[in-house]
Amino acid sequence: MEFDLIARIRSRVKQRGDVVAGIGDDAAVLRPAAGCELVVTTDVLNEGVHFLASDAPADIGWKALAVNLSDLAAMGAEPAWCTLSLALPDADAAWCDAMLDGFLELADAHGVTLVGGDTTRGPLALGVTAIGQIAAGQSLRRDAARTGDEVWVSGTIGDAAAALALGEGGDEVDAFLRGRLQRPSPRIALGKALAGLAHACIDLSDGLVSDLGHVCAASGLAAEVRLEALPASPALQASDAGDAARWSWQVAGGDDYELCFTAPPAARDAIVAAAAKAGVPVTRVGAIMQPREGGPKVRLLDPSGQAWQPDRTGYQHFAP
Amino acid sequence: MEFDLIARIRSRVKQRGDVVAGIGDDAAVLRPAAGCELVVTTDVLNEGVHFLASDAPADIGWKALAVNLSDLAAMGAEPAWCTLSLALPDADAAWCDAMLDGFLELADAHGVTLVGGDTTRGPLALGVTAIGQIAAGQSLRRDAARTGDEVWVSGTIGDAAAALALGEGGDEVDAFLRGRLQRPSPRIALGKALAGLAHACIDLSDGLVSDLGHVCAASGLAAEVRLEALPASPALQASDAGDAARWSWQVAGGDDYELCFTAPPAARDAIVAAAAKAGVPVTRVGAIMQPREGGPKVRLLDPSGQAWQPDRTGYQHFAP
Repeated sequence: MEFDLIARIRSRVKQRGDVVAGIGDDAAVLRPAAGCELVVTTDVLNEGVHFLASDAPADIGWKALAVNLSDLAAMGAEPAWCTLSLALPDADAAWCDAMLDGFLELADAHGVTLVGGDTTRGPLALGVTAIGQIAAGQSLRRDAARTGDEVWVSGTIGDAAAALALGEGGDEVDAFLRGRLQRPSPRIALGKALAGLAHACIDLSDGLVSDLGHVCAASGLAAEVRLEALPASPALQASDAGDAARWSWQVAGGDDYELCFTAPPAARDAIVAAAAKAGVPVTRVGAIMQPREGGPKVRLLDPSGQAWQPDRTGYQHFAP
Repeated sequence: MEFDLIARIRSRVKQRGDVVAGIGDDAAVLRPAAGCELVVTTDVLNEGVHFLASDAPADIGWKALAVNLSDLAAMGAEPAWCTLSLALPDADAAWCDAMLDGFLELADAHGVTLVGGDTTRGPLALGVTAIGQIAAGQSLRRDAARTGDEVWVSGTIGDAAAALALGEGGDEVDAFLRGRLQRPSPRIALGKALAGLAHACIDLSDGLVSDLGHVCAASGLAAEVRLEALPASPALQASDAGDAARWSWQVAGGDDYELCFTAPPAARDAIVAAAAKAGVPVTRVGAIMQPREGGPKVRLLDPSGQAWQPDRTGYQHFAP
């Protein structure tokens, strides 16, 4: 059955021209582009932790690839190839086919070829490794923020956390918000456009405070974020949950997979133009500065300029 | 706790000079060698399927990397980088440290840098992606066997299956056999030496009949193997289990991670010389031929020249 499943997957994969050998040998053989560096990331989605067995299989497949492509986007890389390790409690061809619908839809949209993988029997889990390429020296690093940089975020944030919270609360969840949680859009075009332009970049998987905090920690700096500047989708604004809930979702909720990046004020126009070309709005939400003695890495300011804190500061695995 | 664990891992990793950014950013950034192709493989080990929770953590770590490096060896590639996805039922720093002892011992022995990964809460599983490099066009493919090729295997085979069978039977298991099961040696040096010399190559993970069968299927050919030619270690010979048991372990047992390859008779001396340089013995065990109508892909011949069959033909996931 392992072999049938692999043949099934293999028959559906579109091959890039730089794939010398794809699925079906001991390993894939790939031809990297001259003058490029490789960008490699890996993320696993586990049933019961990152998704529920009752979720639509196509959404699970989409998201397993999306979270990895989002990491490549945050480096400014162009995605090229991926592998998929599938642990299945039992062999379910219909589930696999439906999962692949979502996985391959996103792969095809970004010209990514699935070049190998592994299937094992075990509790449902999808492990993806994605490999991209970028011109040497151009990758967007977490440790590259500088004092005086402005902090930007792409798209809108808080949507995925709102969908999760409203769904758990038993509310009817708006289709846009639900789509943001189930089918995040990795910001590949924007990441590529920012390479060489922005300083530091990270994708928002754990929440703004947590992820921007990583940038600050790696760069040895701090940040201030203005809550009223955070971009909220019309659907999030319409949820009518109040400022505190909305801000909490926006700064502490994860799973938006937008980019958060820093750039000097002089780059403002170039960034707006790059974002327009990539078709993704970007918004300035704060600034990078020297850390204060004993102060937080990321300081949130409410509309009156007072420091503000959410209920929680982002999802941590193994948190108590 | 995820972050402590990552810092713990990061502090122990030896960096190759071609790692531009390793653990700690959204993705790793790597500098590939000019004129090379990339060779990429991924394999997951699940608790209860591929190992037991009671196995020594260092052995589990070693094996998780070894099975992936063995795939690179079977392509003739030089390993360079790897990622590790770790699913843990709970945060156990002592277990992780011990697992890393084995994982990093093997990584360091082959000059491989761990450049990224993922930790999640879930049933114990280790997913590894390994990336190697090889001069363009030199990779050893499964579909490259030709009629008249001789079939070779490296080292000795049947040791891991014997260790498993004898252990399950309650026998005291010889330390050499147990070591072969718990700490397989990926045949990297041999694989590199065979690139450009051998035709087809595969590593013996599922058993000779199954794996050589993949070479035959991919190449559209068949093979004959002489059971008396199969290389048996002194420990396997001493196990005194009888010809039928020994042959079954040798042709149907998996987990030896030796290489099985095909080459024309004219390459015999060059192969023996390459193997001597790599420090691994190689043995001719059969030949590649045109398939017979209705015949098996791999035909086993006993010492009297009669066709012979083992009890089982290799481990298959999801087999009934």
